[in-house]
Amino acid sequence: MEKRYAQRAKKIKGSAIREILKMTAVPGMISFAGGLPSPDTFPYKAMEECSAKALSENGVAMMQYGQTEGYVPLRKRLAEKNGVEIDNLLITTGAQQGIDLACKAFLDPGDVILVENPTFLGALNTFRMYDANIQPVNTDENGIVIEHLEQQIEKYNPKVLYVIPTFQNPTGVTTSLEVRQKISELASKHNIMVIEDDPYKELRFEGKDIPSIFSLNKTGNVIFLTTFSKTVAPGLRVAYALGEEDVIWKMTVGKQSTDVHNVMLAQGMIDEYLATGQYEKHVQDICEIYRKRRDLMIEQIEKHFPAGVEYTKPQGGLFIWCTLPKKIDMDKLFKQALEEKVAFVSGTSFYYDQPTNDNHMRLNFSNSSEENIKVGIERLGQVIKNNL
Amino acid sequence: MEKRYAQRAKKIKGSAIREILKMTAVPGMISFAGGLPSPDTFPYKAMEECSAKALSENGVAMMQYGQTEGYVPLRKRLAEKNGVEIDNLLITTGAQQGIDLACKAFLDPGDVILVENPTFLGALNTFRMYDANIQPVNTDENGIVIEHLEQQIEKYNPKVLYVIPTFQNPTGVTTSLEVRQKISELASKHNIMVIEDDPYKELRFEGKDIPSIFSLNKTGNVIFLTTFSKTVAPGLRVAYALGEEDVIWKMTVGKQSTDVHNVMLAQGMIDEYLATGQYEKHVQDICEIYRKRRDLMIEQIEKHFPAGVEYTKPQGGLFIWCTLPKKIDMDKLFKQALEEKVAFVSGTSFYYDQPTNDNHMRLNFSNSSEENIKVGIERLGQVIKNNL
Repeated sequence: MEKRYAQRAKKIKGSAIREILKMTAVPGMISFAGGLPSPDTFPYKAMEECSAKALSENGVAMMQYGQTEGYVPLRKRLAEKNGVEIDNLLITTGAQQGIDLACKAFLDPGDVILVENPTFLGALNTFRMYDANIQPVNTDENGIVIEHLEQQIEKYNPKVLYVIPTFQNPTGVTTSLEVRQKISELASKHNIMVIEDDPYKELRFEGKDIPSIFSLNKTGNVIFLTTFSKTVAPGLRVAYALGEEDVIWKMTVGKQSTDVHNVMLAQGMIDEYLATGQYEKHVQDICEIYRKRRDLMIEQIEKHFPAGVEYTKPQGGLFIWCTLPKKIDMDKLFKQALEEKVAFVSGTSFYYDQPTNDNHMRLNFSNSSEENIKVGIERLGQVIKNNL
Repeated sequence: MEKRYAQRAKKIKGSAIREILKMTAVPGMISFAGGLPSPDTFPYKAMEECSAKALSENGVAMMQYGQTEGYVPLRKRLAEKNGVEIDNLLITTGAQQGIDLACKAFLDPGDVILVENPTFLGALNTFRMYDANIQPVNTDENGIVIEHLEQQIEKYNPKVLYVIPTFQNPTGVTTSLEVRQKISELASKHNIMVIEDDPYKELRFEGKDIPSIFSLNKTGNVIFLTTFSKTVAPGLRVAYALGEEDVIWKMTVGKQSTDVHNVMLAQGMIDEYLATGQYEKHVQDICEIYRKRRDLMIEQIEKHFPAGVEYTKPQGGLFIWCTLPKKIDMDKLFKQALEEKVAFVSGTSFYYDQPTNDNHMRLNFSNSSEENIKVGIERLGQVIKNNL
């Protein structure tokens, strides 16, 4: 007898990216498909030390139930780092959980959420789980196109705007200060809650840090999300949300009914690691490695990709976004690339409406060796040329 | 401007138990209020060793992103332990997340879920988040009253039945084999999904283990949830769900959009710990400690509580459930108890409709020293007598 699933679960199909990742597990495959940090950057020795210290000096707290809001010493440290009070901060199980809890607090079925188009696939899937009405906002090299945002607000009266302001996934674009200010103003004016998802912020290879929309907004209309997944280790699942006290409280109650609290030891390890003072230098080291890989990937793209392929040159983060000539059949290209043992993610997954005629590809540069970047981009260039 | 919260979030008020826990943080307070395992039982030394081993021998897997389904070596081990295939098993962030993901897969707003009345508060809160129509089933010393279950099925055509079959929270009652079989039959007949929440199963002090409803059911109508929170350490948040492959797959996709995956190190530590072969002996040791505390609490209740107070004698778990004379004003009793520096949880929180005239209290015996059990129960007995 078929099970009586909820509507949201009936819609679930096999994941396209899951299938891609299976195909990329073939020996010899060079994958630019994932969004993984490089295991070369993980602070193995420090994590062993931090775990041993947290467990030996603070064993009861590490092993007993903890508060839903998070481990207090870590919350205090992060609140201070961000210039907020402790009640403005919630520890989350990855920034993904921050997205989920923000939706839980704000989205009723059918509510409109505006998203950059394209945007992060994992966020789109969460919005679909809440049966939200997802509508797109156009973007350019400065982030969201404000005129289009105003039109969409007028048309849809959205409850939420989801934006990845820094080294956006998948495009690599960083939202300018001016656009951030405009987003903040419009959010306050129309009482829209902005989910500002900023996981790559600290992976800046050049250029100046830009203030967050959260820091620009004075009406509590922004939830800021960030994570230690790209700067320490994603396996620890330690991330946090900043927001107005009441918003954080609603998200906290939402978290209580889903996983009660984050793993204490993972929080303790991050707290110990921050206490050592090694974090800032460590992030600089990661940036140095990734900057080299980005530079090399762009150099190789220039060398091996045919004329007519455009690509972004992000100032940080993990991704380059390529625009291919419209006449290329992307499905065919993708299959041929896999045959040649090189993988990427096709652009279509990142659009709210998953168009079939999209001509983009996302390339991850963080998780491939310099040798593999050279060989992989050369292979990919040949496959593209064969399809022109 | 008031934020435009979702309906589910508008209903959120301050948590009663949260307020109680604040009050119990007073120096000298003896608390029987929580549901915490005793920190005396945590395997500190072994956890330090398991963490060191997992990080040093398997550092990349511990720190990189992992699969949503869970860490493969642990899933294999647990699947084997439970006599299921690996695709029938999902690692969850506490059994609480298992409840949440089961709801996500099965409950549309307004769908009826049947619950034992009283039942676990944390589960009720999750069901409320999904805007489920929660309806009660009466229970007696054998668990659910099957005649009432049949009536409620007839009346409500429920999609889900939530049951805690072993050492139930809050009553301590264990569902008999006969009732389990009947539940399984009715679930299959009416295509109801049973959420079998079994976190205390291994904390059996006496009597014989009873087969799970999951193991009795042959139509895939049961999701079985259990956890290492009560047998190793809740801070690690390692739990798992068993179910039909397609059900587990829907829950997996639900998990992907909320926290991507469990903390790898916590999974690695549990896997290493199980590999040492110490787990079974460790659980026996916990049972020995808790059995003594239960026996002492019952002895003290017999000695200090007035005639007319009834209480359960659970064969395991964490809780004793007391029924007080109807004429007692429980709010007044609770306040007086706090003044005398002894705390419990009033029964009302555990009922689906939170009745104001309830006359029960839940006493936790796992997390108090023998000395505190003696002093606390004597204090509580005096307060009850003063209210007769």
